[in-house]
Amino acid sequence: MPTSTPDGPAIVTGGAGAIGSVLVRALLDRGLEVRVIDNFSSGRKELLPPSPPRDRFSLTTADVRHPEEYAEQFRGARSVWHLAANPDIRLGLADPSLDLEQGTIATFRVLEAARRHDVPRVVFSSSSTVYGLPTVYPTPEEYGPLFPQSLYGAGKLASEGLLSAYTHSYGLRSYIFRFANIIGPSVGHGILVDFFDKLRKDPSRLEVLGDGHQAKSYLRTEDCVAGMLLAESRATGPVNVFNLGTEDQTSVREIAEKVVRAHGGRARIDYTGGALGWVGDVPKQLLAIDRMKALGWRPSTNSSGAVDRTIEDLLAARKVPR
Amino acid sequence: MPTSTPDGPAIVTGGAGAIGSVLVRALLDRGLEVRVIDNFSSGRKELLPPSPPRDRFSLTTADVRHPEEYAEQFRGARSVWHLAANPDIRLGLADPSLDLEQGTIATFRVLEAARRHDVPRVVFSSSSTVYGLPTVYPTPEEYGPLFPQSLYGAGKLASEGLLSAYTHSYGLRSYIFRFANIIGPSVGHGILVDFFDKLRKDPSRLEVLGDGHQAKSYLRTEDCVAGMLLAESRATGPVNVFNLGTEDQTSVREIAEKVVRAHGGRARIDYTGGALGWVGDVPKQLLAIDRMKALGWRPSTNSSGAVDRTIEDLLAARKVPR
Repeated sequence: MPTSTPDGPAIVTGGAGAIGSVLVRALLDRGLEVRVIDNFSSGRKELLPPSPPRDRFSLTTADVRHPEEYAEQFRGARSVWHLAANPDIRLGLADPSLDLEQGTIATFRVLEAARRHDVPRVVFSSSSTVYGLPTVYPTPEEYGPLFPQSLYGAGKLASEGLLSAYTHSYGLRSYIFRFANIIGPSVGHGILVDFFDKLRKDPSRLEVLGDGHQAKSYLRTEDCVAGMLLAESRATGPVNVFNLGTEDQTSVREIAEKVVRAHGGRARIDYTGGALGWVGDVPKQLLAIDRMKALGWRPSTNSSGAVDRTIEDLLAARKVPR
Repeated sequence: MPTSTPDGPAIVTGGAGAIGSVLVRALLDRGLEVRVIDNFSSGRKELLPPSPPRDRFSLTTADVRHPEEYAEQFRGARSVWHLAANPDIRLGLADPSLDLEQGTIATFRVLEAARRHDVPRVVFSSSSTVYGLPTVYPTPEEYGPLFPQSLYGAGKLASEGLLSAYTHSYGLRSYIFRFANIIGPSVGHGILVDFFDKLRKDPSRLEVLGDGHQAKSYLRTEDCVAGMLLAESRATGPVNVFNLGTEDQTSVREIAEKVVRAHGGRARIDYTGGALGWVGDVPKQLLAIDRMKALGWRPSTNSSGAVDRTIEDLLAARKVPR
């Protein structure tokens, strides 16, 4: 029987990551006790709140694949927000075991720890990559078949299946969020960071993978976290799945041009050509967000606005002269 | 680059299993060289062909999770038919790691061996359990969302995702078959075997889990294998997915009554009650088989006929007096 109270502690795996760290602050702001598990493989200490309330915050440095190093923290918890994972889709191609280990197996170990310690709710950061190359846009949550293009997507799909099976087998309640491209000042990889890095190395030229016509939906970290918190507080099914994105798309070409303008407008943009940026990429992504809207959630800005804001954040953080 | 010829050897993992052994014979009948990998955890030596042609058959006793014990066999192969897995849905509940290990991780290791040895085609035995509790019957291959009820189903879904990601990342071609309940003389578990075992222990009474109204589609092993062979020879997409079942259903109640009649009709049938036979069970299963029919496949008998034939097989094999 769950020993937790409705306001019991929240576990956040990957709590020092780009999205996890924003979630941790939001949970603390709501007055909850927060226990972070992170191995700092991609998480960063500086993303954690600088002076969290000592009685309501703890950090355990551990890899979620090794429950013996952290499972005690699950005792009495009300929810596990499992965000720990390899964050970069492209890494799986060179090392196919990465998303099996840090995706599927990591999720399994977290679910086992939750089951053993009777944590009643598990929240999972899934991805639009589970849809593969869908034939329907905007893509709704009930879309099928689910044939991911990347090993990253395969790891997310496998994790979703595990959440579902644990929910039905052991009576947890689960929340699955399929993210669009999440961007914000805490995000340490992805298209905007790539473009900033390239222009720092060579301010005269920006090489863009693909033909620039790939068009995706970009959502800010704070909107993503607000959506997760709202849905977790409102949805009452056994397995609750929600897309989290915006209702518009921004093309790689638009992003490249914006980043170049933000750097003074002098760099030449060179497209390598082809519909895909890399093997495992998808040329188009747009998620139906009607389910989240029905709960009362709206992103605070659209995809284009999210890109603009994040360019501002990166300019400020990197002290790029305007 | 694939070094295999169009008629190169076929690898069958789980080739000593209930379905694998029928597949092995069919592949040998087609003149192919067949290399079986089996660890005999549920496979049985006596299911392998009694005197296979020595120059076209080999058996490697190995667990597919340990590629160092068998991957050499993949050299020059044209196809891998990956059927090795835990065959019993119910076992996952007591040991949640079983389907992760023998399902997901096993499939990953087989895919890695196929990739390293340039095997161009991978065929996988998936299951109707990936559909969870669908809202559409008969359930088509493009049904979503995919939320399995059991860890067995989660392992199948995870394996499908891996096949898809490997296909798109490394240029394999993959074939996914979602099986209804497969029955036949080689099948060592499941409802018919359970009922026969119970009546052997107590000929006066047959206890049936659930209310007996669960209704599913039953397909004979030989029809299942014929469908796989046909689709693998005809379908040319990157990821090819097919349901394999019949267009009718048989209820647990009908099966119980048939088995009791076959044993002389004297046993009382006691239903434990409830819509589900066990946690992770589904009350209804019926797969749309239009895709397979479009290729020219038809099951040789319907669900009811498959049950009748298999009862005959079991009566003969167990020498039950008629």
